Amino acid sequence: MKTYLDCYPCFLRQALDAARLAGADQNQQKEVLGRVLALLQGVDSSSLPPEIGDQVHRIVRQEVGDGDPYRAMKQASTRRALELYPRMRTLLEEADDPLDVAVRLSIAGNIMDAAFDREYDLWETVERVLAQSFAVDDGAAFREALSRVDRVLYLGDNTGETVFDRVLIETLDVPVTYAVKGGPTLNDATREDAQVAGLDRVAEIVDTGVDAPGTILHSVQGRACSAEFRRLYDEAELVIAKGQANYETLSTEGAKVFFLLQVKCPVIARDAGVPVGSILLKQGGM
Amino acid sequence: MKTYLDCYPCFLRQALDAARLAGADQNQQKEVLGRVLALLQGVDSSSLPPEIGDQVHRIVRQEVGDGDPYRAMKQASTRRALELYPRMRTLLEEADDPLDVAVRLSIAGNIMDAAFDREYDLWETVERVLAQSFAVDDGAAFREALSRVDRVLYLGDNTGETVFDRVLIETLDVPVTYAVKGGPTLNDATREDAQVAGLDRVAEIVDTGVDAPGTILHSVQGRACSAEFRRLYDEAELVIAKGQANYETLSTEGAKVFFLLQVKCPVIARDAGVPVGSILLKQGGM
Repeated sequence: MKTYLDCYPCFLRQALDAARLAGADQNQQKEVLGRVLALLQGVDSSSLPPEIGDQVHRIVRQEVGDGDPYRAMKQASTRRALELYPRMRTLLEEADDPLDVAVRLSIAGNIMDAAFDREYDLWETVERVLAQSFAVDDGAAFREALSRVDRVLYLGDNTGETVFDRVLIETLDVPVTYAVKGGPTLNDATREDAQVAGLDRVAEIVDTGVDAPGTILHSVQGRACSAEFRRLYDEAELVIAKGQANYETLSTEGAKVFFLLQVKCPVIARDAGVPVGSILLKQGGM
Repeated sequence: MKTYLDCYPCFLRQALDAARLAGADQNQQKEVLGRVLALLQGVDSSSLPPEIGDQVHRIVRQEVGDGDPYRAMKQASTRRALELYPRMRTLLEEADDPLDVAVRLSIAGNIMDAAFDREYDLWETVERVLAQSFAVDDGAAFREALSRVDRVLYLGDNTGETVFDRVLIETLDVPVTYAVKGGPTLNDATREDAQVAGLDRVAEIVDTGVDAPGTILHSVQGRACSAEFRRLYDEAELVIAKGQANYETLSTEGAKVFFLLQVKCPVIARDAGVPVGSILLKQGGM
């Protein structure tokens, strides 16, 4: 998905939010803002939104001098999600259609996105998503694809959401490779974050080879996934891609990708032709 | 009131909104965005928000090649407000405290702010503001000041809101000088806009001498009010200042100014120590 003009004010707001969340003082916040203004002026208009987000969050990390400013928030997110794990297991044991429930739980976890600082109650979100109609429901194609493949490549997103991903992976009847980021960016899960959520017990964990949000397959800035990850991606028969940044980077990368997400941003909503607040199980196109 | 870092993303969003409302095509929107990014990078951090807003909206006017891009919107706003004029007169005739009702009507009209594109029903807004408690109520000092002076300088704000101002002016027992902008900026009222609302029948209309929002008394950019208007301002014994931009430019200009406004922006809300959505009748300080 291309970067829209509406993304520019939002990047500036995100930079300020991120700097504050990372503990930046007034001067550091001002430095971040100045550097992001310069970045946005010079940005290649063909960049994907997560490519710009990558640069914004690198500026924040540099200015506050902390390689993982979301560390404490991420740890709290995983704890919060792990507390709900037994309740999620109970839901699955009682479910008539465990895959449907597990997909919804995984989508519910996508609320844990630090780019959006709306207040939410995590269990209320679970209950909402369990009851909500899909705005796009390619569930039939998803089940059909799942029945054909020997392995799934699962592209993670936020820390904490990892626990919800684990529940879906435990419900799948097929081995899973779980991809995390190559290093901290925003509150995205790294290998360490995924391990705390217990993902190493249910999947093979790999990383994208780059500390950038989403899954950037090609990049003019040389900030794409590693060749090794790219090979894994190309060879995958079925890809589950979580969250907005993966949608933004992969929405036109073909039918083997299934996006599971909550739509939190009006630009993505318009691009996907659905209202903000929607839940999607959407097969990729070209 | 100083410009906060939170104002920067908002200026960028406002620029895009304004360009679209002014009919800018995709390329013009991009040009506006690029120029506003450059502006924000170089801006003097001691600028008042309306000084930056002034430059943002001049960029929009230049890029779309229209000296008054809000013309149609302004005309519609005045028509809409004039339709409510008879109902407002009836409310006043039936009022136990006509001044209180007229002040509230004037504040209700402050909803007609093109910088905020929230949907609203104009008469519902009137009913809300008639029933709402003031977050700051310096009404006693205002009445006392009104009883002492021979003339009021009334600083207008948006077009359409002008009709609500007229109702308040008709209720005051003292002659009024009504100040409009020296030329089009955003949807602020100019002399022509005020005349359509009938203000020339109830007040002497003057202009600030500059096509900038708010009331910029001094400016490093040389975009302040004219010397003639400045003299009028200095000599005024009591000033009624409508809306956010007048609050932003005059909030520390002393106790002869009374601000009547709806708080629509979180930064002003924080500065004034009140929630967004508040109504204020607030005496100025130093």
